[in-house]
Amino acid sequence: MKKRLFTPGPVSAPEEVLLEMAKPIIHHRTPEFLKIAEDVIKNLKYFFQTENDVFILSCSGTGAMEASVVNIMSPGEKMLVISGGKFGERFIEIGKAYNCNVITIEPEWGTPLNISTLEKILNQNPDTKAVFATLCETSTATSYDIEAIGKIISKYPKTVFIVDGISGLGAVPCLADKWNIDMLICGSQKALMLPPGLAFISVSKKTWELINSSSCPSYYFDLKKYKKAMEKYDFPFTMAVSLVIGLRKSLQIIREQGLENLWEKHAKRANAVRKAAETIGLEVFSRSPSDAVTCIMLPANIDGEKFVSKIRDEFGISIAGGQGKLKGKCVRISHFGYQDEFDTISSISAIEVMLNKFGYKVEPGKGVKTCLENLF
Amino acid sequence: MKKRLFTPGPVSAPEEVLLEMAKPIIHHRTPEFLKIAEDVIKNLKYFFQTENDVFILSCSGTGAMEASVVNIMSPGEKMLVISGGKFGERFIEIGKAYNCNVITIEPEWGTPLNISTLEKILNQNPDTKAVFATLCETSTATSYDIEAIGKIISKYPKTVFIVDGISGLGAVPCLADKWNIDMLICGSQKALMLPPGLAFISVSKKTWELINSSSCPSYYFDLKKYKKAMEKYDFPFTMAVSLVIGLRKSLQIIREQGLENLWEKHAKRANAVRKAAETIGLEVFSRSPSDAVTCIMLPANIDGEKFVSKIRDEFGISIAGGQGKLKGKCVRISHFGYQDEFDTISSISAIEVMLNKFGYKVEPGKGVKTCLENLF
Repeated sequence: MKKRLFTPGPVSAPEEVLLEMAKPIIHHRTPEFLKIAEDVIKNLKYFFQTENDVFILSCSGTGAMEASVVNIMSPGEKMLVISGGKFGERFIEIGKAYNCNVITIEPEWGTPLNISTLEKILNQNPDTKAVFATLCETSTATSYDIEAIGKIISKYPKTVFIVDGISGLGAVPCLADKWNIDMLICGSQKALMLPPGLAFISVSKKTWELINSSSCPSYYFDLKKYKKAMEKYDFPFTMAVSLVIGLRKSLQIIREQGLENLWEKHAKRANAVRKAAETIGLEVFSRSPSDAVTCIMLPANIDGEKFVSKIRDEFGISIAGGQGKLKGKCVRISHFGYQDEFDTISSISAIEVMLNKFGYKVEPGKGVKTCLENLF
Repeated sequence: MKKRLFTPGPVSAPEEVLLEMAKPIIHHRTPEFLKIAEDVIKNLKYFFQTENDVFILSCSGTGAMEASVVNIMSPGEKMLVISGGKFGERFIEIGKAYNCNVITIEPEWGTPLNISTLEKILNQNPDTKAVFATLCETSTATSYDIEAIGKIISKYPKTVFIVDGISGLGAVPCLADKWNIDMLICGSQKALMLPPGLAFISVSKKTWELINSSSCPSYYFDLKKYKKAMEKYDFPFTMAVSLVIGLRKSLQIIREQGLENLWEKHAKRANAVRKAAETIGLEVFSRSPSDAVTCIMLPANIDGEKFVSKIRDEFGISIAGGQGKLKGKCVRISHFGYQDEFDTISSISAIEVMLNKFGYKVEPGKGVKTCLENLF
């Protein structure tokens, strides 16, 4: 059975990326690899839209989230987390694990942040060292207005702005420098179209001042070590070379297409899926939906876990179910990765057909028609 | 030019492993992947020779070393590091980063540990919570008598024994349970014949008691999270799926060959290289040489860095130079990875030919003859 991976990470990788990674392994401390690293770092800066340092870590996205906390905070210091789902909660958990003073703004799942609340909280807490937000909260497929948040935080010279862009960067606009993002985090298994195993983090000059005074313990995630090694495009610890070699190819593909084009394509596909869901009579969960991932509520009598399993087992199509309080109630479809318009049609087709099999009657092709109209 | 990778990690991977990793990416929370993980964990237990838990982390070996420290220690508590090179030093650095009370035994580089010193230090420091040692210290290609150290430590019911087996496990005998090793650490890019990106750690029952009382902060490396997820052969964070899929294949290859056979082959190849070095008139650095890696001193007037570069550039053969105080003075050749006897001959041939080019006269084939005699 042909396999299609439309989960919000990991995603399918282009064949030419997979083949790059199947080439003989090279040593990480050779001119050949350092040249690749230099090339990759330059293109990552484009991908991040930043002039700041961008570091590659050999770990999952969570490792880079931890790096953002431990490099700038000290125990007892105040950090503000804007958390509207499972991945916002992760910043809270990390902050607590390191005994930081974590304060939160928790918009209801699937709703945007009220910007005035942020300003109020920041004014009440002038000792806030860092604000943590999520570009696309994967668990709810919700987009937050990072540009607006960045504008507010830039007025506070002692507060830095950290964004988990793991599940959105490259799929939706996110301009690290223009939007005043001090640390932007990304992972390999989303819009970068690679297997999981690499994480990335950009670090602004404003952040370096905090890094030098932070007292949270760290070793593997100590960014000072990465900065020193990066002077020669090197790494402090053995790097996952095959993934970096694959990354060079996927960044070349992305650069050729251009970020603006990619954003537009993702927006179009996401919009088509939302419109198709509406036609079928299903509700899009988020009131601030991301163009990276869409979360569609299932009819109340359908077991979402079974629904997702059956689509995978019968059609070879992997989409995700719900997480946390949405478990069993929804499906989530990614629009990033190695996907095109026909993949979008495949995902909606599979959902339509399976809904009928589960007894929720949809006129065959109804959602697909809407999808097509909005795609082409 | 044909490339041969004989550095002490990374190493070449078998073609069938590379091709496994080039297959379409699958999601990490699917029955298909959990089945693979179950299979991999079972074979890892064989590879570690343990009935204990073995966890897979998505990071380099250093990440697992950090995991071993942060999960059992609390700030101020005493840990003893046996350090005879750069990787022993890494445990010291990690312990200090987390404000542990690090005491050390530092055998001269390339010399074995005096076991009676260990007993003396342990008796003087009954509050030692853990002893850290290295199976094969890659920087000096030195083997430590882990079995003997384990026997001593097993007499101290409150002290656990942690071994960095990154660069030796699978190449030389190391029996986690029989040798009383409480935490054994390994990496993917050595005898497991994979690209870098995965690390492994086994955890004994004795260790779990310490883990539950440790107060070093951690999140990504918090083994309690891995233990909970492992009940279903799952992982707390997105796993580097393609590397795990490659690992399944390399573990199958290892299991088919059998660990005892592998140890014997490594010993034979390492012995052949040591004998060949002697014939050529070069000294093996270590007085307790490992069968995983060999470190050969170069004639004093040869610049080791240039020597290694020229072998790489002219012959496509990658071997390593020296690290730390051995920088520029030696070559290091691995015997693990996807290597056979003819690869051993290639590495000695390249060194012979290059020595002549650098003005150190060796009768052509002299070292290779010795190598052959000891291999077949």
